[in-house]
Amino acid sequence: MIRVMVYGLGPIGAAVARQMAARKGFQVVGGIDVDPAKAGRDLGDVIGLGRKLRVKVSDDAVKAIRAARPDVVALCTSSSLKKVMPQIEGLLKLKVPIVSTTEELSYPVGPNRRLAKQIGDMARKAKVAVLGTGVNPGFTMDALPIMLTGVCERVDSIRVDRIQDARSRRLPFQQKIGAGLTAAQFQKKVDDKGVRHVGLAESVTMIADAMGWKLDRVTDQIRPMIANSTVESEFLAVDAGYVCGLVQDGIGWSKGEPLVTLHMEAYLGAPESYDAVTIEGSPRIVQKIAGGVHGDVATASITVNAIAKILMVSPGLRTMRDMPLVSWWNGR
Amino acid sequence: MIRVMVYGLGPIGAAVARQMAARKGFQVVGGIDVDPAKAGRDLGDVIGLGRKLRVKVSDDAVKAIRAARPDVVALCTSSSLKKVMPQIEGLLKLKVPIVSTTEELSYPVGPNRRLAKQIGDMARKAKVAVLGTGVNPGFTMDALPIMLTGVCERVDSIRVDRIQDARSRRLPFQQKIGAGLTAAQFQKKVDDKGVRHVGLAESVTMIADAMGWKLDRVTDQIRPMIANSTVESEFLAVDAGYVCGLVQDGIGWSKGEPLVTLHMEAYLGAPESYDAVTIEGSPRIVQKIAGGVHGDVATASITVNAIAKILMVSPGLRTMRDMPLVSWWNGR
Repeated sequence: MIRVMVYGLGPIGAAVARQMAARKGFQVVGGIDVDPAKAGRDLGDVIGLGRKLRVKVSDDAVKAIRAARPDVVALCTSSSLKKVMPQIEGLLKLKVPIVSTTEELSYPVGPNRRLAKQIGDMARKAKVAVLGTGVNPGFTMDALPIMLTGVCERVDSIRVDRIQDARSRRLPFQQKIGAGLTAAQFQKKVDDKGVRHVGLAESVTMIADAMGWKLDRVTDQIRPMIANSTVESEFLAVDAGYVCGLVQDGIGWSKGEPLVTLHMEAYLGAPESYDAVTIEGSPRIVQKIAGGVHGDVATASITVNAIAKILMVSPGLRTMRDMPLVSWWNGR
Repeated sequence: MIRVMVYGLGPIGAAVARQMAARKGFQVVGGIDVDPAKAGRDLGDVIGLGRKLRVKVSDDAVKAIRAARPDVVALCTSSSLKKVMPQIEGLLKLKVPIVSTTEELSYPVGPNRRLAKQIGDMARKAKVAVLGTGVNPGFTMDALPIMLTGVCERVDSIRVDRIQDARSRRLPFQQKIGAGLTAAQFQKKVDDKGVRHVGLAESVTMIADAMGWKLDRVTDQIRPMIANSTVESEFLAVDAGYVCGLVQDGIGWSKGEPLVTLHMEAYLGAPESYDAVTIEGSPRIVQKIAGGVHGDVATASITVNAIAKILMVSPGLRTMRDMPLVSWWNGR
């Protein structure tokens, strides 16, 4: 039985907590959230479990962890590594292993590399492992294509397509992809980084490093998908001419050639959802997951499944590239 | 540059050696084979490289390894763990890490568990790692489906289908699947274990252990595929009424239910080659590799790719379940 504290009770943290409450092998020993509307209440109520968990949500991380002594913390507070850095520092001072859904921690790039080095040093000192994971980044657009190259004698380039009909996703996701905006509003939100998928540069870099490819540059471009007839979800209706979602391409370039192309389309009304990997090389690999891997369920699942493995790996900052296979398990 | 000795120069060992000779990051420092037709000749000639490698094939493993001091040995002599056991013992006495294509080493089951324990003990004592790998067992029917469950919150059962048109495979493979035999000859060869795919029980058990499932029994059944019209490959022609290949099912049972079903069809004239994984659970995962993963190229590739990782893992007997992601790399 692995005792887990969930830090951050937004949609993903709540899903992680609910999943552990329902699965064997895990015990949710507490929740942490600074939101005054959550702190002090029963964790089961806050995460919408339908029953009490008889542990209160705390707004004081240090106190909560000292009291509950979790084996692992699931950190689900922000996409930004800079923002979660003080939280990680606090947790590592208390010597607790961390599995986080922070996209920028999955494979830190650019200025985040300096923070990653600090985390690695602190984690080794605390003798615990830290991992950033999720479905994307963490699986569909990096770990899975990397694994598929394992049967190749030569890889020339890698392309991943992740096409999602956003109608089945939660409202915050539909908003994050810009559904319902005008093209001008969309562009403004892109400029403000309010509309975007976080993680393509991380996934591109994880793949390139695994292949041993030195990239000249990584580009990450977003454009709107415009509805050509009214399309609606449970939450929103988007008329023709308005934005119904986004198309985003993360590309790793070498000498003007795209070695890694990660293409995402997430919009209301996509005719077919799927995840596909195409590896140009020998043998050529053409792989597809029909229907795609549903983002919310899958991110909570892979986080919970990684919690079961984080206690087995050597101390430091791990990535999904160097973890043993993270799989579902029935708790035995 | 990883210095590798190839032990066993049959079709797979020769393919492993040729691939390393062509790839960056590897240096083939020698070959071992007891066949008098191979021993003493230049390794490049023996493996059909088209150029000399300026190392002679040796029939004396100990002498060859003492002379060449390889970083890793690629062991490609037999499917049977019992048969390769003396070779592994000899190599571990010399403290050399091993990556082997021995199917029964991929995830030792039944009486092989005792041998696996001995290998683990010897490897830890020698402070080196040992791995059994290949495309199947080792990838398509075990490591890949295990990895795909990583995004699941619940797994009820797993099915893998590997369908191969054997016309594109080498003659020994076509013979191994019984092509050209009568049904009676096929059954006799099945009884003698001359016709069969080795590894289904290993793959079933690897998956069940990863999931935490306790199986009541594992079955492994073979039946012939009978040609209903003449079908030919480069090497063979099979008339209607004769065997053109095999259908083999490895199933892991619990309380009368098949939790793991590994279904293989390998025959001349299969209309579509593919590898498919279906995970019943939440979310349901339906994954397919169009065209399938070609067995010979892929087994050589994953062996070579694993050689690059075997020096990074802790000593002992490893399996593809607990390795970091084995991927292609460009040698840098």
